Amino acid sequence: MKIGVIGASGYAGGELLRLLAGHPEFEVSCVTAHSNAGEEITSVHPQLTSYAGQSFSSFKASDFERCELIFLALPHGESAAVIASLSPKAKIVDLGADYRLEDGAKWEKYYGGTHAGTWTYGAPELPGARANIAKSSKVANPGCYATAIALGTAPAAKIADLSDVVVVAASGTTGAGRSAKINLIASEVMGSLTSYKFGGVHQHTPEIEEALTRATGTAAKISFTPILAPMPRGILATITMKLNSAITNEAAHKIYNDAYNGEEFVKVLPLGQMPQTSSVLGSNYVAIQVAVDEHTNRLVVSVAIDNLVKGAAGQAIQNANIICGLPENLGLTGMGLGV
Amino acid sequence: MKIGVIGASGYAGGELLRLLAGHPEFEVSCVTAHSNAGEEITSVHPQLTSYAGQSFSSFKASDFERCELIFLALPHGESAAVIASLSPKAKIVDLGADYRLEDGAKWEKYYGGTHAGTWTYGAPELPGARANIAKSSKVANPGCYATAIALGTAPAAKIADLSDVVVVAASGTTGAGRSAKINLIASEVMGSLTSYKFGGVHQHTPEIEEALTRATGTAAKISFTPILAPMPRGILATITMKLNSAITNEAAHKIYNDAYNGEEFVKVLPLGQMPQTSSVLGSNYVAIQVAVDEHTNRLVVSVAIDNLVKGAAGQAIQNANIICGLPENLGLTGMGLGV
Amino acid sequence: MKIGVIGASGYAGGELLRLLAGHPEFEVSCVTAHSNAGEEITSVHPQLTSYAGQSFSSFKASDFERCELIFLALPHGESAAVIASLSPKAKIVDLGADYRLEDGAKWEKYYGGTHAGTWTYGAPELPGARANIAKSSKVANPGCYATAIALGTAPAAKIADLSDVVVVAASGTTGAGRSAKINLIASEVMGSLTSYKFGGVHQHTPEIEEALTRATGTAAKISFTPILAPMPRGILATITMKLNSAITNEAAHKIYNDAYNGEEFVKVLPLGQMPQTSSVLGSNYVAIQVAVDEHTNRLVVSVAIDNLVKGAAGQAIQNANIICGLPENLGLTGMGLGV
Amino acid sequence: MKIGVIGASGYAGGELLRLLAGHPEFEVSCVTAHSNAGEEITSVHPQLTSYAGQSFSSFKASDFERCELIFLALPHGESAAVIASLSPKAKIVDLGADYRLEDGAKWEKYYGGTHAGTWTYGAPELPGARANIAKSSKVANPGCYATAIALGTAPAAKIADLSDVVVVAASGTTGAGRSAKINLIASEVMGSLTSYKFGGVHQHTPEIEEALTRATGTAAKISFTPILAPMPRGILATITMKLNSAITNEAAHKIYNDAYNGEEFVKVLPLGQMPQTSSVLGSNYVAIQVAVDEHTNRLVVSVAIDNLVKGAAGQAIQNANIICGLPENLGLTGMGLGV
Repeated sequence: MKIGVIGASGYAGGELLRLLAGHPEFEVSCVTAHSNAGEEITSVHPQLTSYAGQSFSSFKASDFERCELIFLALPHGESAAVIASLSPKAKIVDLGADYRLEDGAKWEKYYGGTHAGTWTYGAPELPGARANIAKSSKVANPGCYATAIALGTAPAAKIADLSDVVVVAASGTTGAGRSAKINLIASEVMGSLTSYKFGGVHQHTPEIEEALTRATGTAAKISFTPILAPMPRGILATITMKLNSAITNEAAHKIYNDAYNGEEFVKVLPLGQMPQTSSVLGSNYVAIQVAVDEHTNRLVVSVAIDNLVKGAAGQAIQNANIICGLPENLGLTGMGLGV
Repeated sequence: MKIGVIGASGYAGGELLRLLAGHPEFEVSCVTAHSNAGEEITSVHPQLTSYAGQSFSSFKASDFERCELIFLALPHGESAAVIASLSPKAKIVDLGADYRLEDGAKWEKYYGGTHAGTWTYGAPELPGARANIAKSSKVANPGCYATAIALGTAPAAKIADLSDVVVVAASGTTGAGRSAKINLIASEVMGSLTSYKFGGVHQHTPEIEEALTRATGTAAKISFTPILAPMPRGILATITMKLNSAITNEAAHKIYNDAYNGEEFVKVLPLGQMPQTSSVLGSNYVAIQVAVDEHTNRLVVSVAIDNLVKGAAGQAIQNANIICGLPENLGLTGMGLGV
Repeated sequence: MKIGVIGASGYAGGELLRLLAGHPEFEVSCVTAHSNAGEEITSVHPQLTSYAGQSFSSFKASDFERCELIFLALPHGESAAVIASLSPKAKIVDLGADYRLEDGAKWEKYYGGTHAGTWTYGAPELPGARANIAKSSKVANPGCYATAIALGTAPAAKIADLSDVVVVAASGTTGAGRSAKINLIASEVMGSLTSYKFGGVHQHTPEIEEALTRATGTAAKISFTPILAPMPRGILATITMKLNSAITNEAAHKIYNDAYNGEEFVKVLPLGQMPQTSSVLGSNYVAIQVAVDEHTNRLVVSVAIDNLVKGAAGQAIQNANIICGLPENLGLTGMGLGV
Repeated sequence: MKIGVIGASGYAGGELLRLLAGHPEFEVSCVTAHSNAGEEITSVHPQLTSYAGQSFSSFKASDFERCELIFLALPHGESAAVIASLSPKAKIVDLGADYRLEDGAKWEKYYGGTHAGTWTYGAPELPGARANIAKSSKVANPGCYATAIALGTAPAAKIADLSDVVVVAASGTTGAGRSAKINLIASEVMGSLTSYKFGGVHQHTPEIEEALTRATGTAAKISFTPILAPMPRGILATITMKLNSAITNEAAHKIYNDAYNGEEFVKVLPLGQMPQTSSVLGSNYVAIQVAVDEHTNRLVVSVAIDNLVKGAAGQAIQNANIICGLPENLGLTGMGLGV
């Protein structure tokens, strides 16, 4: 099955190429980039040795006629114009934000510009989502923070107050993209922690709220503070909510375990073991732990993902597998590096 | 003025020796360690070149008779026995937890063992604290997390609900001590984030609550989740509370600015600039920023300190300066490395 | 094909399990550990989700009767006793040093204790090695530094003086093992570089010299200085030798290119591109660049590997593939993470 | 004594300001920057709290008439034009490369453009240098690598062959400047090692050779390979040379000890202790260890400095102290952070 990747010079695009090289059913046929068009793929992504000799091409819609499935990894706001030129029959997974939100006003408030529309939200493990994805040919792939936070919060709907969820989540630097900015250079980042988009203004906030509200039937409201962490990959999200009533650690743990029972990629850890981002490094797995803070009657949840895999390229392939009728885990069973 | 340091082989002890070497009034006269007794100071702390040729001695009370001022940097629970053998007239700053809490039951719950007693809590910038410290000869130096969190929360008492403060704070690894444990080795920590003491069980919780309640006159309750970050030093605390009523960013910022107006070591950053731990690295400074999350009607505060300086050795010297009647900033004006 | 892993609680053992889980022909049947026997595999290696529910067992020779192929990842000096109890027909790849050296006196000088013997040295890409490995049922898997340095040096035999090779190589901390030592804790390592086994005493020195002498027919002598780098994985080796006569960059590059032409795992980069350890992270690939320093008439070679993959577990599986008559790259085609 | 800093927005400039703030005799009076002119100093260097409220000014020669001493921290090639406009009586320490080389042809080969001239080379601890500096009013401050390598090599002139010195040195990322380039962003650097300016082309090569030849009376030739290390600060240089004749470790150590006997800033460590960059972090100290590799008859030297302090701003102040007739260590006695 021939596939295309549009916008492959960034970190998410590179990760797509890496994972797709090991996918038994998908054959990468077209790879485009904008400013890097004409350059060898390995000059931008030296790790992608199996692509040696291939170059990024400029986007030409006709090149993609042979592709049954297309991944888009473009900057926010650029997907619609490209999609308009593609065959309406093409299966598309958009890693960008353009089609994630239902509420156009929210899109315009958080991203600026015009809302492109709403596609099926591709978070397969959220209640009710998988069946919808399977019926879709166009999927909006969730944001990295949104993935971690929605998966960590949804099971709590039964026991906690989703109208006042507090989240602090730290991300590795690839979450900020492959972009030459002073605040992202290694000298500024290594050995340091700093917050950004401070005061509840991160653009994943409405996405998380919509996803949770849809998944749980409860109006969710979230206070989210992101942090830039001195590591290349990984998100660790800490989520806390008021419990509706007292509950034991074990009972809370069981609710989470039950919620993700049978899920290949979402692992609720045994009590006493904490998620660490290194354990999911390079993999599509999610590690979750939950605890009851009896002192404050709060539920506390810790979630680790690799922002480039489950938070971007891996989940995109997972969604592609679903809409193509393939086993959901195809090409995604590689485990985390651990160290 | 001759001073002694008891328990100088750990990170806080080493930092004390580093800072004391630059202090114009304090002369380090006795330096003890337990398992490293007899070893050269520079074999444990190779950076301390000005101590070359000196060794750690075993603790002998008589050695400390000549010391007017003594710093204790011992493991929790070990201070009382040592103090019993020292002159009651000695000025003492205890970097351990033994004398920090008023509530003995809380001490026993969080630390185990017997509560040693309660000393003046040495957080000079909290309302009402400085004058009490100045009258004391024995000071309990605050915990590293407690320092960051109490300073970041106290000014909010006027505008927010301190009965449900949510804090997520990440610390560099020196916060876990100079201890050979598998979970602290570099292979496990670098490139990874993980939470610990999860579910509201961190022992600084009652200390922060007591400090805030004392400083603000409001009963404070805190849900605190600590995170181990891949960097040697630094704490970044994110604090959030429900606002009592709507307030602008500028008004919230002014309240914090006013609260720390004239304080040498606590800097409320200009709006738009975020605290980063590297900017306080190696220094006694605290960087704070505050914002209103209008979406959730929450106040969000970000605080950065160096856990070994303002979170331990630097604040200990600041307290010592106060109880000795010296300028509070003596020996502490070195600025952060920045990178 | 049933296989066993003896000594799987260390980093090399964990990496074996990770890679073996994706191998289409090998089925992990027995997994032992010493001090961790009885513990769940995922309690030590939380990333290994596909092993959930399985525990390390204590070594019992009878358990291994069903294993056609056995990997040993034991501390130096412990392989012989275990091997004596295994079936002589078993195919074995030993990741330890016990059977790597031909010269028993050198073994005893650098490792202490008794030399166990000499097995086929499993560096498939060195001249003459692959055919020997294919005929063997017992293979000594090379050391991590030895792999990088021998591959980086061997092609130079035609143009440079191998009797005075100077190497400085830096390794990530997993090279030092999963061991709770003060000098390996994150606080000591992060943000710092330091050398160790200083003055030509590293135990891989004779291994590299034997490998190069065997592969090139020239007596090789090496001055090797190892460095501990603040990263979990990766080796970057810098190798320099006097050139026999002046040669251009292009000519030197062609010699290296020709030497590894057709090798799946050894990539001589295009001129102008430098090896970086992140590009081989998690993969069995080797990245090499070569340059002529005209100013000093020296050849300079830079080599990057992942110490746990090509430097340990990956190369072990590569050797196992060869001795089992399987395609050499089976289970090993995953590319590096890149970032 | 009023002083000026021209070009203070980079890392070396920021470090100058940090150290000058603690200098008892120097009063920072003029601070310029080019593209950051008009911005607050703390917006670029948030750690420099004592400069709060001050802004970078554009360079105007008349502003510097009141400055007895001026530090230049400009990009290579820009010093001459600025200096031409300053009073010829001004004492100047240039942190750039423009006046470091005696050989103009080498300057043009390695830097391009026109050679500005030759000033006294400010490496006080090299034989014969201090007296020359004391007589000068203009000093060329050494490069960061040059400082580490020249100090590590000079004492060996008596026992080793300086005509074929091999050096591999790794630097933290601040050595590459405060510059927004893709290869310097944290995602690319963290967890990775890579070489650059590969093949003997680094511009410090002629500087080191001239410094060593001048200091030792022996024509020095050096093969130098630099490496970018995943840490903000620090250089670890590994230097090796053929010994003229066999010598013991102890004898080599004594030669180095004697060479730096009485030097405040250069510390030859006790045998068995290795330099680590963290131990000199933030300080003007140099840590050196030396060993004889009997196997290859080579001397091996390991040197650690902080590239921004002894490798730039600290040594510049040291030189300024000398030319101003002040105690050489004034404002420079702060010790390394250690962790």
